Amino acid sequence: MKKRIAIDMDEVIADVLPKFLDIYEEKYGRRPSEEEYWGRKLYEIEGVRALRNVLFEKGFFRDLPIIADSQVVLKELSERFDLYIVTAAMEFRNSFEDKYDWLADHFPFIHWRNIVFCGDKSIIKTDWLIDDHPSNLETFSGTGLLFTASHNVKEERFHRVNNWQEVRAYFADKE
Amino acid sequence: MKKRIAIDMDEVIADVLPKFLDIYEEKYGRRPSEEEYWGRKLYEIEGVRALRNVLFEKGFFRDLPIIADSQVVLKELSERFDLYIVTAAMEFRNSFEDKYDWLADHFPFIHWRNIVFCGDKSIIKTDWLIDDHPSNLETFSGTGLLFTASHNVKEERFHRVNNWQEVRAYFADKE
Repeated sequence: MKKRIAIDMDEVIADVLPKFLDIYEEKYGRRPSEEEYWGRKLYEIEGVRALRNVLFEKGFFRDLPIIADSQVVLKELSERFDLYIVTAAMEFRNSFEDKYDWLADHFPFIHWRNIVFCGDKSIIKTDWLIDDHPSNLETFSGTGLLFTASHNVKEERFHRVNNWQEVRAYFADKE
Repeated sequence: MKKRIAIDMDEVIADVLPKFLDIYEEKYGRRPSEEEYWGRKLYEIEGVRALRNVLFEKGFFRDLPIIADSQVVLKELSERFDLYIVTAAMEFRNSFEDKYDWLADHFPFIHWRNIVFCGDKSIIKTDWLIDDHPSNLETFSGTGLLFTASHNVKEERFHRVNNWQEVRAYFADKE
C-alpha cells in the first residue's frame, strides 16, 4: 500500500499572503513591510485584527494564487504516494465551495475522495502532514513537515521545508 | 484524554430515506414497499438509479429529519467523549453549506473543530466510528459500529446498533 501524505491548503498550496497585502494596502494606503508581519500573521499586527474578517466572505478563497511548484511536485508525488488535501475550512462556512472549486481548477488530479475539510487535524491518520501551522503538527501522529510562512519563521521544533522544491527533495528517497 | 467517537451523518443522525420515499412516490405514483429496497439503497432498485441525482441538488440535505434520539444521546456522550461528525460529503459539492447549517441547527453543541467533510474515511483516527456503510468500517482502524439502515441489513461482520438507544447502551460502560 502506498504511504499517505496530507497537505494543507492555505499558505502551502494556496497563497493567502498577497491577497492580504492588497487588502491592507487598500485600507491603509501603504504596503506593510515584511518586518511588520515577520513571525506572525499579517492580521496580528496591532490594530489590524479586523482584516481577518475577509476570511469569512464568499469569494476570498476562490482566486488565490498557487504556491510556486506545488502543482508539478504534487502531481509527481501522486504517482508514488496517496495524497490528501486536508484544510481546516470548518471555521469558514463560506469557504467550502470556493476551496472545492479552486482545487478542481488547479489540482484536478486530486480525487474528491482525497479532500478533507476539517477543524482539528489531530484525527487525521496519514504518514506525513505538510502544514504551515505548528499547532497542527504538534498533535499529528505521523511525521510533520513545517512549510515556511511568515508567521512560523521563528518555529524550530519541526522539520522545515521552505518551498516545493525542498518538498520534492525530501521525498526523493522516501517510499 | 477523552476517547474519540466519529459519527457519520446520513442515515445515522440525518434521515435520508423518508425524503427518498417521497421523491419516489412523486415520480412513480406509489410508495415502494420495504421488500423492494430491503438490503440495498432505494435508488438501487432496478430502473430508478436516476433518483440518486437529487443528492447533487442544493437543498437536499438541508431539511432532513433527525434520526430518533440522536440529539439527546450525542449530547450525553459529548460529556464523556470527544465527538466528531464525519461525513463523506465530498462527492456532493452542493451539500456542504446545507450539511453545515443543518448541524448548526440541530447539533449546536458540536463545535466546528469537530466536523469533518471527507471522502475516503480510512484516514480518520478515532477510537470508534458509527456508520451505516460497511465499506467505511472495513478500512477503519478503530472499533466500528454498524448503524442499521435498509441497505445494510444483510451485513454481519460488524457490531450492529439498531438505534440510538442501543448506542447509549453500548457506551454505558465505556470510557
